Amino acid sequence: MKIVIDAFGGDYSPSEIVKGAVTAVNLIDEVEIILTGDKEKIENELKEIGYTGTKIEIVHAPDVISCDDSPTMAIRRKSESSLVKALSILKEQDDVVGMVSAGSTGAVLAGGLFIVGRMEGVKRPALAPFLPTLFEDKKTLLIDCGANVDSKPEYLLQFAIMGSIYVKAMRGVENPKVVLLSNGVEESKGNDLVHKAHELLKNCPEINFCGNIEGRDLLSGEFDVIVTDGFAGNVAMKSAESTINTFTAVLKQEIKSGGLGSKIGGLLLKNTFKKLKHRINYTEVGGSPFLGLEKILIKSHGSSKAKTIYTCVLQIMEIHKSNYIQNMREGIAKSNVIEGESDK
Amino acid sequence: MKIVIDAFGGDYSPSEIVKGAVTAVNLIDEVEIILTGDKEKIENELKEIGYTGTKIEIVHAPDVISCDDSPTMAIRRKSESSLVKALSILKEQDDVVGMVSAGSTGAVLAGGLFIVGRMEGVKRPALAPFLPTLFEDKKTLLIDCGANVDSKPEYLLQFAIMGSIYVKAMRGVENPKVVLLSNGVEESKGNDLVHKAHELLKNCPEINFCGNIEGRDLLSGEFDVIVTDGFAGNVAMKSAESTINTFTAVLKQEIKSGGLGSKIGGLLLKNTFKKLKHRINYTEVGGSPFLGLEKILIKSHGSSKAKTIYTCVLQIMEIHKSNYIQNMREGIAKSNVIEGESDK
Repeated sequence: MKIVIDAFGGDYSPSEIVKGAVTAVNLIDEVEIILTGDKEKIENELKEIGYTGTKIEIVHAPDVISCDDSPTMAIRRKSESSLVKALSILKEQDDVVGMVSAGSTGAVLAGGLFIVGRMEGVKRPALAPFLPTLFEDKKTLLIDCGANVDSKPEYLLQFAIMGSIYVKAMRGVENPKVVLLSNGVEESKGNDLVHKAHELLKNCPEINFCGNIEGRDLLSGEFDVIVTDGFAGNVAMKSAESTINTFTAVLKQEIKSGGLGSKIGGLLLKNTFKKLKHRINYTEVGGSPFLGLEKILIKSHGSSKAKTIYTCVLQIMEIHKSNYIQNMREGIAKSNVIEGESDK
Repeated sequence: MKIVIDAFGGDYSPSEIVKGAVTAVNLIDEVEIILTGDKEKIENELKEIGYTGTKIEIVHAPDVISCDDSPTMAIRRKSESSLVKALSILKEQDDVVGMVSAGSTGAVLAGGLFIVGRMEGVKRPALAPFLPTLFEDKKTLLIDCGANVDSKPEYLLQFAIMGSIYVKAMRGVENPKVVLLSNGVEESKGNDLVHKAHELLKNCPEINFCGNIEGRDLLSGEFDVIVTDGFAGNVAMKSAESTINTFTAVLKQEIKSGGLGSKIGGLLLKNTFKKLKHRINYTEVGGSPFLGLEKILIKSHGSSKAKTIYTCVLQIMEIHKSNYIQNMREGIAKSNVIEGESDK
């Protein structure tokens, strides 16, 4: 199974990205990886790690797209960048099943749209990460978390449909519970977009719509798919992330300043804290797939280290094996027949 | 100093609300409280607590507005409700400086607008709670967190101005750092509303605008005022709340299931956890003032217990003593002169 990775995206590139790729090919028999980026630099990284195998191919791309570049312009003009090269390989090579990039979100999304292309019938692809929840074995899909900051009600309806198909394929959930993120659970709450989307979701026979939720329910684990526009979804996810970081930091401060008993307590709980971090750590959940494209594209966190890249490779394998692309194509085709021409 | 409290708002009313009022008059010499609601029930609560003092007055209001009521309709029609009575007392009695309600947010906001009334020049009053941050002595104002779910760019500009005046009055911060909540720090990021608001904020000489932030920076404590529309603000605040609850619950699960060492560690850290909870607990920060009204109105959390109500009374005293109403009137008048007629 071939996967292409943009080796020059993210805060710790190329070193951590290359390490992640090496971990993946070493630990997963069936995986082969194509790394795009400055060939010499990647070779040096591989040498440093001591990788001498044949499961990593390098495709030279001397240029890099940074977060300061205008996404659309960069995708159009920087054809020799590691990101554009990787996207083109994903698009053109049939045996490449998926791609990971930890680079500029805007550029990855723009490239996904312009180079890889949308699935037929998809209005707007959406970023859809799984969030950790109160329950160890339950993750909730948040769709969209940043691709469509100005959304229309009918986009949200399609996010609900795509999210349901994806969760069904990935988790085997038969009738995924779909909810709409609002500022209160009551139907009367919500902004104009939420009111209109609520009507569409309520009347859509293809999904199991369970009403509105508020931010307070984000990680409750009681639902399978949380639908929202890309702006609010991004704010929700990152606010949760901010809170985890702050909570952890404040806990450390308090343990440090709390006297001997507190320090011993901290030591005794070291493994518990590690497990806790593992359970609620976003980076261990993997990246955000960009649902609705012709192929599997994962946007990994900008601060991704080797472990996250490895997790993203596992995620691509899981998505690929779930037969999601085929399911999504059929599901979207069916939903467009039912929906009719309402969006035209 | 007289404060009116809606005794029949919130999940734990009237019992916890009455307890909070008794705590306040017992602990704060200068405070007198008017409780609105079913007189007999309130008297029974007072009897149960054993309060026989003269600093609590009851104004009978047999009716209650619930979260199921349509806010605007309820405010218009339920004139005998505890909430409407309290709002009318706040509006009419000059010696009543502020009010607390833990009731339906929608109804409190509608009542604030229709009964108490906006300050001259204020386009849209906004809910503005202080959020806990990484630093013990630093809180950040989030404005708006739910009053205006469909906002215009010029509302956000005024939120920035009101937030700055409030933080200056309350915290003595000379040149409050104002930021705009977006889905990324880059100026190119954001939805249409953020782009337009960014332009207005950037060009406003009355505020110290420091650019965009993302949800990840919500609790960093590096800024004084975070400006956003009521929908995104509500999602951000409640997502943070959800994360704290989940984090705490998962931590408890892990300590419980982690063997003897982990349990002892948990016991040793009991005080630390308590302090941590105190530091990041939203309910201890008080309620959300509804900024831009003619008088001080605090919306307290629906799940407020006695301690929160007491904290809200302290908060009203602090706001009153900061001379915020006068400062806000002058600040808004000045800003409207500068802004000119742009909103008409």
